[in-house]
Amino acid sequence: MTAPPLLDAIKARYSCREFLPDRPVTQPELARVLEAGRLAPSAFGLEPWRFIVVAKARADAVARACFDQPAVTTAATLVAVVALVGELAPDSAYVRARFEAEKPDGDLTSIYAAYRDHYRAETIGAWAAGQCNFAAAQMLLQAAYLGLGSCPVGGFDADALAEALALPPGETPVLVVALGHCAHPAPPRRRKPAG
Amino acid sequence: MTAPPLLDAIKARYSCREFLPDRPVTQPELARVLEAGRLAPSAFGLEPWRFIVVAKARADAVARACFDQPAVTTAATLVAVVALVGELAPDSAYVRARFEAEKPDGDLTSIYAAYRDHYRAETIGAWAAGQCNFAAAQMLLQAAYLGLGSCPVGGFDADALAEALALPPGETPVLVVALGHCAHPAPPRRRKPAG
Repeated sequence: MTAPPLLDAIKARYSCREFLPDRPVTQPELARVLEAGRLAPSAFGLEPWRFIVVAKARADAVARACFDQPAVTTAATLVAVVALVGELAPDSAYVRARFEAEKPDGDLTSIYAAYRDHYRAETIGAWAAGQCNFAAAQMLLQAAYLGLGSCPVGGFDADALAEALALPPGETPVLVVALGHCAHPAPPRRRKPAG
Repeated sequence: MTAPPLLDAIKARYSCREFLPDRPVTQPELARVLEAGRLAPSAFGLEPWRFIVVAKARADAVARACFDQPAVTTAATLVAVVALVGELAPDSAYVRARFEAEKPDGDLTSIYAAYRDHYRAETIGAWAAGQCNFAAAQMLLQAAYLGLGSCPVGGFDADALAEALALPPGETPVLVVALGHCAHPAPPRRRKPAG
């Protein structure tokens, strides 16, 4: 197989509203999608995310929390992207571990100073959710690249979804990435014109 | 040229801290990077972003607003990603135009109802900034795909950067994407382990 140019994958990606039954996402495909998310960039190298492959036993509760949208009820696989909001206080062990990984031989003074300013200035939950979009964008493109359909689902009851996913305190759901083989062709693409 | 697999581009992307002098980004390359951003997904189809290719005459002021980070001072081309925060009130002409584009034949009642709830619940500036990360992620991957180096720069004095970019009220800077040919190899990749 010759790999398609990236812009082809970008153009092939669209929000699939309904997936075909009996067309699973294979384990190697899912592994690639998750790896694409894992390697995404993040501010301060904090990777403030966790990806949860939704277990079959939880899928119905997740779908209900997403108001039973067909993209969710028909998806072959659901990956929840959650923000690790509770880990992001500047004095947390999580932040220290990420900064030490980011600057293994370095002085952490300046990154801590910058991050403390940032933490004070930002609405940290919304900011962490925004960082998760870097990972989600890479996952969606990887799915398109593999010929899979996808839908980033942001419409859900956050409390119900947190419960369905059994999230610990401090983790908040950002997106449910629905994956599968799409049951409908791409709708016409609507975008603002270029610059 | 055989196109590299997407995961290769994902792995080739790293934050370049200094770019080579006299190695410009070509117009076709820049056009592809901007197109990759333009085609990004966004919640409610709002595309709450604008991309500004920084003019030579403004580059010094932009660099100063970014604390003269070498990634910015040495970049061949700078693209500022700004969030259109001021356009996002549910009764705005901008929102109406995007919803009508999204649902050209449809009833807008349900999307408006969902968006009004969303607008009430969210810190809308931080949310819009987070949406811009979908566009930025696609630009960074497109740059890597073309063999360009890049750095998403989020460390800046927001007021100074807004002034340097002559942003109108209601637009806020999210990231400066520095582009060029990188002067150093990729540093070791540090990421949390999979799963």
